[in-house]
Amino acid sequence: MTQKFVYFFGPQATEGDATMKNTLGGKGANLAEMAKLGMPVPAGFTISTEFCTAFFAEGRQFPQSLRDEVAAALQKTEEAMGTKYGDPQNPLLLSSRSGARASMPGMMETVLNVGLCSKTIPGLVKKTGNERFVYDAYRRLIMMYSDVVMEKAEDIEPAEGKGIRLQLEHLMNRAKKTKAKNLGKKVSEILDTDLTTADLKRLCTNFKKKVQEVLGREFPDDPDEQLWGAVGAVFKSWEGRRAVSYRKIEGIPAEWGTACNVQSMVFGNLGDTSATGVAFSRNPATGENKFYGEWLINAQGEDVVAGIRTPNPLNEETKNPQNQHLTSLQAEWPDLYRQLDEIRSKLEHHYRDMQDIEFTIQESKLYMLQCRGGKRTGTAALNMATDMLEEGLIDEQTAVMRVQPAQLDELLHPIISPEAEKNAEAFLHGLPAGPGGASGKIVFTSADAVAWAKKGEKVILVREETNPEDVEGMRAAEAILTARGGMTSHAALVARGWGKCCIVGAGDAKIEAGTKRMSVGAVKFKEGDLLTLNGTKGCVYQGELEMIDATENPRFQGYMQMVDKFRTLGVRTNADTPEDARVARQFGAEGIGLFRTEHMFYGVGSDEALFLLRKMILSKTIDERKAALDELSVFVKRDIKATLEAMDDMPVTIRLLDPPLHEFVPQDPKNRQELATALGISPAQIKKRGESLHETNPMMGHRGVRLGITYPEVTEMQIRAILEAAAELKKDGRSPKPELMVPVTCDVRELDVTKVIFDRVRKEVQQQTGVEVHCLYGTMIEIPRACLLADRMAKTAQFFSFGTNDLTQMCFGFSRDDVGGFMNDYLDDNVLEADPFQTIDQDGVGQLVEMAVSKGRSTRPDLKIGICGEQGGDPASVEFCFRMGLNYVSCSPYRVPIARLAAAQAAIKAKK
Amino acid sequence: MTQKFVYFFGPQATEGDATMKNTLGGKGANLAEMAKLGMPVPAGFTISTEFCTAFFAEGRQFPQSLRDEVAAALQKTEEAMGTKYGDPQNPLLLSSRSGARASMPGMMETVLNVGLCSKTIPGLVKKTGNERFVYDAYRRLIMMYSDVVMEKAEDIEPAEGKGIRLQLEHLMNRAKKTKAKNLGKKVSEILDTDLTTADLKRLCTNFKKKVQEVLGREFPDDPDEQLWGAVGAVFKSWEGRRAVSYRKIEGIPAEWGTACNVQSMVFGNLGDTSATGVAFSRNPATGENKFYGEWLINAQGEDVVAGIRTPNPLNEETKNPQNQHLTSLQAEWPDLYRQLDEIRSKLEHHYRDMQDIEFTIQESKLYMLQCRGGKRTGTAALNMATDMLEEGLIDEQTAVMRVQPAQLDELLHPIISPEAEKNAEAFLHGLPAGPGGASGKIVFTSADAVAWAKKGEKVILVREETNPEDVEGMRAAEAILTARGGMTSHAALVARGWGKCCIVGAGDAKIEAGTKRMSVGAVKFKEGDLLTLNGTKGCVYQGELEMIDATENPRFQGYMQMVDKFRTLGVRTNADTPEDARVARQFGAEGIGLFRTEHMFYGVGSDEALFLLRKMILSKTIDERKAALDELSVFVKRDIKATLEAMDDMPVTIRLLDPPLHEFVPQDPKNRQELATALGISPAQIKKRGESLHETNPMMGHRGVRLGITYPEVTEMQIRAILEAAAELKKDGRSPKPELMVPVTCDVRELDVTKVIFDRVRKEVQQQTGVEVHCLYGTMIEIPRACLLADRMAKTAQFFSFGTNDLTQMCFGFSRDDVGGFMNDYLDDNVLEADPFQTIDQDGVGQLVEMAVSKGRSTRPDLKIGICGEQGGDPASVEFCFRMGLNYVSCSPYRVPIARLAAAQAAIKAKK
Repeated sequence: MTQKFVYFFGPQATEGDATMKNTLGGKGANLAEMAKLGMPVPAGFTISTEFCTAFFAEGRQFPQSLRDEVAAALQKTEEAMGTKYGDPQNPLLLSSRSGARASMPGMMETVLNVGLCSKTIPGLVKKTGNERFVYDAYRRLIMMYSDVVMEKAEDIEPAEGKGIRLQLEHLMNRAKKTKAKNLGKKVSEILDTDLTTADLKRLCTNFKKKVQEVLGREFPDDPDEQLWGAVGAVFKSWEGRRAVSYRKIEGIPAEWGTACNVQSMVFGNLGDTSATGVAFSRNPATGENKFYGEWLINAQGEDVVAGIRTPNPLNEETKNPQNQHLTSLQAEWPDLYRQLDEIRSKLEHHYRDMQDIEFTIQESKLYMLQCRGGKRTGTAALNMATDMLEEGLIDEQTAVMRVQPAQLDELLHPIISPEAEKNAEAFLHGLPAGPGGASGKIVFTSADAVAWAKKGEKVILVREETNPEDVEGMRAAEAILTARGGMTSHAALVARGWGKCCIVGAGDAKIEAGTKRMSVGAVKFKEGDLLTLNGTKGCVYQGELEMIDATENPRFQGYMQMVDKFRTLGVRTNADTPEDARVARQFGAEGIGLFRTEHMFYGVGSDEALFLLRKMILSKTIDERKAALDELSVFVKRDIKATLEAMDDMPVTIRLLDPPLHEFVPQDPKNRQELATALGISPAQIKKRGESLHETNPMMGHRGVRLGITYPEVTEMQIRAILEAAAELKKDGRSPKPELMVPVTCDVRELDVTKVIFDRVRKEVQQQTGVEVHCLYGTMIEIPRACLLADRMAKTAQFFSFGTNDLTQMCFGFSRDDVGGFMNDYLDDNVLEADPFQTIDQDGVGQLVEMAVSKGRSTRPDLKIGICGEQGGDPASVEFCFRMGLNYVSCSPYRVPIARLAAAQAAIKAKK
Repeated sequence: MTQKFVYFFGPQATEGDATMKNTLGGKGANLAEMAKLGMPVPAGFTISTEFCTAFFAEGRQFPQSLRDEVAAALQKTEEAMGTKYGDPQNPLLLSSRSGARASMPGMMETVLNVGLCSKTIPGLVKKTGNERFVYDAYRRLIMMYSDVVMEKAEDIEPAEGKGIRLQLEHLMNRAKKTKAKNLGKKVSEILDTDLTTADLKRLCTNFKKKVQEVLGREFPDDPDEQLWGAVGAVFKSWEGRRAVSYRKIEGIPAEWGTACNVQSMVFGNLGDTSATGVAFSRNPATGENKFYGEWLINAQGEDVVAGIRTPNPLNEETKNPQNQHLTSLQAEWPDLYRQLDEIRSKLEHHYRDMQDIEFTIQESKLYMLQCRGGKRTGTAALNMATDMLEEGLIDEQTAVMRVQPAQLDELLHPIISPEAEKNAEAFLHGLPAGPGGASGKIVFTSADAVAWAKKGEKVILVREETNPEDVEGMRAAEAILTARGGMTSHAALVARGWGKCCIVGAGDAKIEAGTKRMSVGAVKFKEGDLLTLNGTKGCVYQGELEMIDATENPRFQGYMQMVDKFRTLGVRTNADTPEDARVARQFGAEGIGLFRTEHMFYGVGSDEALFLLRKMILSKTIDERKAALDELSVFVKRDIKATLEAMDDMPVTIRLLDPPLHEFVPQDPKNRQELATALGISPAQIKKRGESLHETNPMMGHRGVRLGITYPEVTEMQIRAILEAAAELKKDGRSPKPELMVPVTCDVRELDVTKVIFDRVRKEVQQQTGVEVHCLYGTMIEIPRACLLADRMAKTAQFFSFGTNDLTQMCFGFSRDDVGGFMNDYLDDNVLEADPFQTIDQDGVGQLVEMAVSKGRSTRPDLKIGICGEQGGDPASVEFCFRMGLNYVSCSPYRVPIARLAAAQAAIKAKK
């Protein structure tokens, strides 16, 4: 017996169900399931995904056995619908739609109204009594079929603007123009519905002529030929260019294939007792447990979506200002509404999730065309999960899985009103570096940002790229926009740390900070002009768009508590100030995974500390340097103490000074002069020192532990400041838990040399204060060699913390500051699937991480391992860290909830 | 029975031999061996290395069992020598010397003349009839013993300048001053020998007072106490600071321990029938098979080495201009000479290698004090190996092992006369970047170098650091000196490629190119001043030192042919020009492993090509770029064709354009203006383009294959040029073997995207020329991720070539341009054992290489694998590559012979 390829669905004897997604595709499986549940699904059949594979294996042919199966299924369909395909009196029309295992929206083809031809048109006219409807359906068939079946499926590649569909649309526009002239209207005022039956009949004739002329073949007039053409086109579209490239990106195997769903057509545009609509079983924007949807009388599905007519509300309680004057389905046809509402309830209880539904009413009879899990906003996802849990529809585990981690972001930041954004057009695009939305006036310097903000203005700081000297202005601005830089550039890191809206790498913007002007193509901007940024998408709009407040969802905290029940992976935060630490604690951080000592030299209030640091850098002898360090240590200790206090009783990983020293030497003449005056040396000396510190590739230069090897006194000062701060807090009855982290190590001997200082200073501080301070000694793992030699590193290090930013840089040889020059080409050409600075490259960097974990624990089984790179807040990366057996992830404060959720979901997935 | 620790050696009953190095140390084993061979070795005994371990394990104590063993061995020694230790009439004096398994020159201690005390002095005076000799020996004992035994071995750390030895030397200098006054001479004219017996007696008394005063202990007057003190000091010196740090560097385990050799003293300074000398069984500088050495009548060993008196020649035939007026040993005492010559011959036949001998003649009796394998120059090593092979003393395999690969370097470059260098003092040190020596006048710019060289002047180009624009001047100069940069900086790479003398990173030099001045500390230099550089050592001398020509040893070629019999690893060269290719072929290169396309844009004659490249970079549209590329391709094809022709029949690996484009945009206003005029655009436009191409970390920026992904037309031009050049040569009956190498890859999809172009262009060229060109398609492996994913890379790549420079950069996170800022600290502090840019870091980078080899061959078993990093010519790295199973190494032309020898030795070692 040959393999079964065709599965019938209808009021009786449905052969599939929702579990058969692999065979029937998502759409076919859900149609079968609805039919099984006794819902009014127009009958039809699904040709399975297995046939798709066979189809390509057999040279795109249909074997007789399939033709036999289809004939049998078609007969059952005809019986169910009480019509007959190709019958001149009572013709059945069919649709042919793709449906793969995984959703591939818009990537494959559909043909509707199959079966309309000279033989069946008269019968349908007679049956419907609606000649205009029939010819409208016919012209739609010709447009769709000639494009999908006769052109695309035959691999014909027309010259630009010469595709058959465009040429037919051109004919249709001509017809509308004539109509406009006749009616004395503007063309833009003419709707499809203004075309009369006669117009449509003429159009169909012209369409068929054009098809013959362009494609050299007649439009098929035989129902059988139409059916097999439509089925073949659906299968062929699986190997179409768009689908293949989409599959490559999403990692969908070619072997999966698509199914083809052949279904009886039903029409919502058969007159005033017909209608069509889409609905959600709950509100997809808010999560409210109310049946929510839109419908239109005498219309087809695409009309509802297209937005030409304002659709009617589904029921009375969900009316809104835009549609409150329109009749609801509930009011118009109460019985049909009740029937639909019962189906809604049945589906939700059956699927235990919010459903997205398509329905059609044909001459007062309701048909269900589709149901699937509905897309929703973050707020809605959270509310639905909580509601359904309370309703007993789902359990806690399911509730935790129902919110995508990235969706939480929405709950934490103000955003542009979706309505306002829909009607606006972005004139500039960049990388979405900091989430949420913001409006404000353009300023071009950090100083202006601060000054304007003081006057109460909301400003957007626009820079070629930002550097540490801009931090004050960035803090003062509502949002930051830069022309250069990648997702982990300075601006992006700082903004994300603060949860501030930020777009970087908007390369089309030409920024002239000197003249305070920006241009994008022909459009010019000056200081004070209004901009609105969507930092979640990377879109920039002119003017001020409406913003909506991030409603602090009252259920958020409760939900996160539930999430933590399932979580085993720790979540810490990267925080450099007591304020950041407090925010992160509120978001549930369990410690600080990365405190960057150097950040106390940037931004507001850092002047004095920065001055002392510069003095230290510019000192000419060790003694001078030590004197400067002594002064500096007061500030270092103060800042560390405040942060240890804010995180009392939780671990705080403090990283030794990391950046190369030249970052701190002022580069512009004005700052240089100021510093020279203050230090009593010449600006030339400062310039010279800056030049002698200059490096060709500072990322791989004299930084991190390398500074400590050259200037051990700098390391000693920092260690002393940490231990003294902790000792003083302990004396006050607090429980500080400092952890010392040595950065940029590539060999255990770097750790050994530094540990000699650590051990000595610890003893000295203990003697001097009488307090014993416990402080873990560990290292950042951010250099490939440290991973390769992790067994040795762990002999001295008590903990590892992966610096996946730098590890990614070294593993790929990508400078994150310069990657903007080619990353887009890499993503466009599919050379890379994702930006490895946003989500850990599991293939490459992942191997290094795995190696470091297993080698590290081979010498020190209780080695504590975390990650403090930017990817610590990326859900896929969190899941990876969980699988690798890390103890914790650390991310910026605003990503802590995201990491917590991702960690819980990873644990649940692992249990399954 | 307790373990045996003491081994006697003497005319009879010698207990050890040369095979017992692990127990007796190198020195002890050779003394025993000589004694066994019946040579006149002063009797004595060796306390074994095993005791050293026991000594430290037992708290630095001597157990009674050892004291008993020593007493027994001492008795045999006394019997053999016919004297008695501590005997007032006929006293035996002893030496106590260290001797470890591995040579640790000068790292441990020695005490001589042990046994001299108030009890034995009169007897020795009587016996020798030479009171002056005895007191001279006594003052030597006090100096040495108080320093080594009483101070160092007791872990006393005196303040600077307050060590006992210095204080005693100070007393001796005072005595000389007094003498000078008395004799009416200058102090510098007074020799030790001018001090009379009375002077020496007084000195000994003062010495002992000073010892008591400084160290608070009396100088021991008991022979037994002296002996055990001297033995203990030798063992303790194994854990002394110098020895410990030397062991760490050389990787010598602490457990090995040192032996202690206690041996009868014999004296060459007992009068005119006594003498002392050192000799080599063949000439260590030339290898000539003539007994070669120096001796002095009435002298101690240190006098020969110290160079205060010109030593006499050993025999008539090796006299030289410096010593031809002096009597040879052969002429003075023919019998003793004959006896020594026989020993020489016996030793050479016994050890089958050139021996370094120390001997003493005491009152007309010859004693052998030491023999060991002699150090030799490269020339000597080669000649000796060849001679001994011809003499049948050694086989070919041994001959190949006898020359250290690095020694071959000497044979290929002119060097400073060692004599001249010995008398000169280097005033500046840097990294030895290019081998050999050179003298010349200082110039500060590339243009001056070219201009002066044209006038026939020899010049040294002195620069802060060099860049590609300096290449012409570098070519014209005798040598290059830079203040910045590491071993793989631009200057170093270029110089080494040419085999040119070069010193980089001489940080003490303050160079002001503007005013054409250089200063080093207080010393000032101006243009035209003479310098001499030793590029093999990194030393810079003032003035012009004598140079000796690299004698092209006629046996070099023959030796290298023999070497190749054992070699299995291929050796190619890195060459960018036909000239380099020809040089390398002469040196035995079997192909080009790295042809850098970009080098045709640097240096002499590159103006036009560089102009076109710049035009391409500055073009604003794809069409402009394509037009510039068309013009450029003529030059690219010409240069590639010439090199393919020079290497006809051998593979030539051509790398696609590698550096970031901004390297080619002129940076100084003058060049910018010239280019702007030529291109008809504004200098501001050039500046802007340069700025837009500027990168923060260019090493990890937009370069290599990344350029090709962004500008596929650039890749296409290069591929077409390569394939057309090959096709044209093939048409002319040649056998070009191009291999296309894609640089800086981190993912196989980069290779796939580029291969599409490669395959298309290959087809096109074949159609157009009618010639089928075979060209391997491969990639440089220089990014860690490429190693981690080598199995995927090898699906497309037909060969790998490790770019170990970049791989080292990424693996360590070290920028080779900036490593100068901390590398010395890393080496000084023993954080790293070697500069990983000079020799492959087998621990870290080695893991990546191993991974890439095994993963790569897992998908493509016949994958061809080579290395083209700088380390390809480093012997240790070559051995590593052999062990990893690579097919070939590729190095600069002048290192090809070194690599060949290293490869042969690796193969021989592996067989053993």
